[in-house]
Amino acid sequence: MLCQVVFLFYSQIKFSMEKIFDLSDIQAFERFYRVNFITKLCGISNANLVGTLDENGVSNLAIFNSVTHISANPPCMGLFQRPLTVPRQTYENIKNKGFFTINQVKSSFVKNAHHTSAKFEKGISEFEKCQLTEQYVEDFPIPFVKESGIKVGLSFEEEHLIKANGNILIVGKIQKVILPEIALAEDGNILLEKIETVGVAGLDTYFAINKIAQFDFALPLQEVKKK
Amino acid sequence: MLCQVVFLFYSQIKFSMEKIFDLSDIQAFERFYRVNFITKLCGISNANLVGTLDENGVSNLAIFNSVTHISANPPCMGLFQRPLTVPRQTYENIKNKGFFTINQVKSSFVKNAHHTSAKFEKGISEFEKCQLTEQYVEDFPIPFVKESGIKVGLSFEEEHLIKANGNILIVGKIQKVILPEIALAEDGNILLEKIETVGVAGLDTYFAINKIAQFDFALPLQEVKKK
Repeated sequence: MLCQVVFLFYSQIKFSMEKIFDLSDIQAFERFYRVNFITKLCGISNANLVGTLDENGVSNLAIFNSVTHISANPPCMGLFQRPLTVPRQTYENIKNKGFFTINQVKSSFVKNAHHTSAKFEKGISEFEKCQLTEQYVEDFPIPFVKESGIKVGLSFEEEHLIKANGNILIVGKIQKVILPEIALAEDGNILLEKIETVGVAGLDTYFAINKIAQFDFALPLQEVKKK
Repeated sequence: MLCQVVFLFYSQIKFSMEKIFDLSDIQAFERFYRVNFITKLCGISNANLVGTLDENGVSNLAIFNSVTHISANPPCMGLFQRPLTVPRQTYENIKNKGFFTINQVKSSFVKNAHHTSAKFEKGISEFEKCQLTEQYVEDFPIPFVKESGIKVGLSFEEEHLIKANGNILIVGKIQKVILPEIALAEDGNILLEKIETVGVAGLDTYFAINKIAQFDFALPLQEVKKK
């Protein structure tokens, strides 16, 4: 009995124990410790493969965890390219060709998708080396990833240099969307739970997802209702 | 036997049936259909509550699915504010006070978090109306959400107007991080699976997460290894 009380008391304390870090603490972190820590702060992100073609027609594929919804009208998506302090094939190819694809990672090929983050030399296609399949469709010049659930073809629209660290925000306009019929609901919703969508934390940890709730549009004076 | 073969054949076809939409198809979608469709294309996003204070000291809390990692050094995060065609309290408060907080949504209060998306009048705090608790810490002027797992305090650094639709990218520099001790691994990783982190698809559908793999840094000529 006493043991139980002590345990409960201890577990309560343990659960509520928080650590607070200041900017100076973070700046003092060892480099890889800091990367692990900071890249996880957003929580769970989407995992997408960005497909491009270089000037010789060699395909390129790279995993990004920074694809973001921009707007429904015009339909636009964005992604962050890391600083151009070293050659960035994805960025160069997008600027060169004016088009790119965003392809969602499924749990069935998460290992192949992670492999695209390796530094392959220019002229070598990650499609081939990571065992993923190019899919071309009519009226779009860049390959999609055949194995993906949701596939989006975009035209380059604008870019913004982030002064803080030299990242570049690339904004694209959606020109093509390819998805399995079974994933499209009557109201336009795309049912991620039907297409093995994964989430990613930082640069290395992947998660499967389970739907817990879908809510109606929220109103100030009403309790939130499930759909 | 024949039934089985027919069923297998049918299920294969069903599985592989894809629909292709062009920009003109998307532009012709009914407005709400298009919003449902386009907002789901990124896949699973993080769900975060952005905390601010107005010029009278009234707190504000709003859910965002567009928080993005920007850089580990300097430690920065970004989020997209929708166009300023109507008053945007979060944006005004960030510009006015120069500081804001990003607080991760947990499955235990996902309904309260969704309720912050309702249009509450200025001067009314979503903390109170959505039954979430303000948490102040030393040397930071803006409240955090006590119930959250990961809590980040930021200073406003820069903004970028997205020409395509009038969104604004807000970039903040991390000044404070608060998190439960149990979530912090020895290598700086934050273990999202220990703190009920949820993901969100679009504006209305929430997901719990299950870790499926953590991989080592990928190298071109080696198979990807699990950590």
